[in-house]
Amino acid sequence: MTVIDFTAFIGRLATSSGETILPMFRTSLAIDNKSTPGHEFDPVTEADRAAEAVMRRMIKETFPQHGIVGEEFGSENQDAEYVWVLDPIDGTKSFIAGFPIWGTLIALLHRGTPVYGMMHQPFIGERFSGDSQSATYRGPSGARNLAVRRCALLQDATTYTTSPLLMNDADRAAYGRIESQVRLSRYGGDCYSYCMLAAGNLDLVIETELKPYDVAALIPIVTGAGGVITTWDGQPAQHGGRIIAAGDPRIHEAAMKILNG
Amino acid sequence: MTVIDFTAFIGRLATSSGETILPMFRTSLAIDNKSTPGHEFDPVTEADRAAEAVMRRMIKETFPQHGIVGEEFGSENQDAEYVWVLDPIDGTKSFIAGFPIWGTLIALLHRGTPVYGMMHQPFIGERFSGDSQSATYRGPSGARNLAVRRCALLQDATTYTTSPLLMNDADRAAYGRIESQVRLSRYGGDCYSYCMLAAGNLDLVIETELKPYDVAALIPIVTGAGGVITTWDGQPAQHGGRIIAAGDPRIHEAAMKILNG
Repeated sequence: MTVIDFTAFIGRLATSSGETILPMFRTSLAIDNKSTPGHEFDPVTEADRAAEAVMRRMIKETFPQHGIVGEEFGSENQDAEYVWVLDPIDGTKSFIAGFPIWGTLIALLHRGTPVYGMMHQPFIGERFSGDSQSATYRGPSGARNLAVRRCALLQDATTYTTSPLLMNDADRAAYGRIESQVRLSRYGGDCYSYCMLAAGNLDLVIETELKPYDVAALIPIVTGAGGVITTWDGQPAQHGGRIIAAGDPRIHEAAMKILNG
Repeated sequence: MTVIDFTAFIGRLATSSGETILPMFRTSLAIDNKSTPGHEFDPVTEADRAAEAVMRRMIKETFPQHGIVGEEFGSENQDAEYVWVLDPIDGTKSFIAGFPIWGTLIALLHRGTPVYGMMHQPFIGERFSGDSQSATYRGPSGARNLAVRRCALLQDATTYTTSPLLMNDADRAAYGRIESQVRLSRYGGDCYSYCMLAAGNLDLVIETELKPYDVAALIPIVTGAGGVITTWDGQPAQHGGRIIAAGDPRIHEAAMKILNG
């Protein structure tokens, strides 16, 4: 069975979605939200919907037999051999605050398994991509392979979670046990954290309540860079939920024990 | 009394410090920390020191009579009429994790008052600057004036703090009272948060235990964009400590009451 090389097409999806989103980034000031009650302009929702619509149209034109799962417009033909999973703006809270650490997530599933993923940050001009075998970065300073770093012990780890405020009480307590053991715990980041893990800049990302489209594209990037990404129970990550990603399998195992203990 | 226009010179300081820092951003993987015990390479410390040395040399060559206060190399001639306040990398924890939301802070004080400030993010290529009368942004999408947005009520505010983990118990409890009232509370950001406040993308930044070099450059940017920045007691912010910045004076006042109540 041959897996078709979709790389060039995914690059075009990223370019078109980025061109759609960027004019609406940091526009809050330019828009008078209150001028038309009941018709308020919400830049992030507008950008999200417009970018997903652009990508869906391109996919349907080029691969009419493929399925699509998107954050904004739901699922269609999701039992197809190939299914695209789209999150036009992952990190909407960073987006609305003007922080350029959100990204467009594009995943391609083959018979339910993510075989290619891209995270595109169009404002900075960065693309992180992977196919589970290898992972690549393209950005302002050029292109290079992505590779996780070794980190044998939790006490040496830099760890990220988007926000403990997003966790339920039990999960926050479990995360607190991790936080008390690691060298550095930081908040914020969404998809950007997983990409920095793939790039060897941090060691652990732990989150809860992710949707499939929040994580599907990140799996082939993290594993392609040599990392591990599963649910807190060690199950495949592509259905979302409570997710743990690690650059080094030793701290993946150690952190899972603490989260579940 | 004429205040000399230092804008072009500050631009050169930013360019040179950025060229010094950037090669050391995201280099952790390329460096074998363990190869020489006792001589470990710490990219952020190296970059911090090298960039401050470059800026000090340029200032001394061009304005030998000026004072300098820097994070890395201390103070010299700090009773001079003009004093430069330098923080080569504000947001070192973002820097070491590969997140491009750190910045180089350059302030110019005249008789103790900040009269010009710049935040430079060289990886993205963004410069935020201000002189208390106006503030300007230059970045990948061009140049524009910075202006805060109106936000009359705390319940509508988006607020940032770098991390509640950096606060002592009493300050964290005070910040918790703010957090329970605002629309959105986010962590992370360092200098970037103040610049997004100046750009009208968020409403409130509240922090503790800042050093003078963490905040001096941000004051003319925030006030130049129409915002307010003081200590939690309403005193001038340039000496650091517990700092509150607001885009709208109404939530500055409301938040101060809650922090101090």
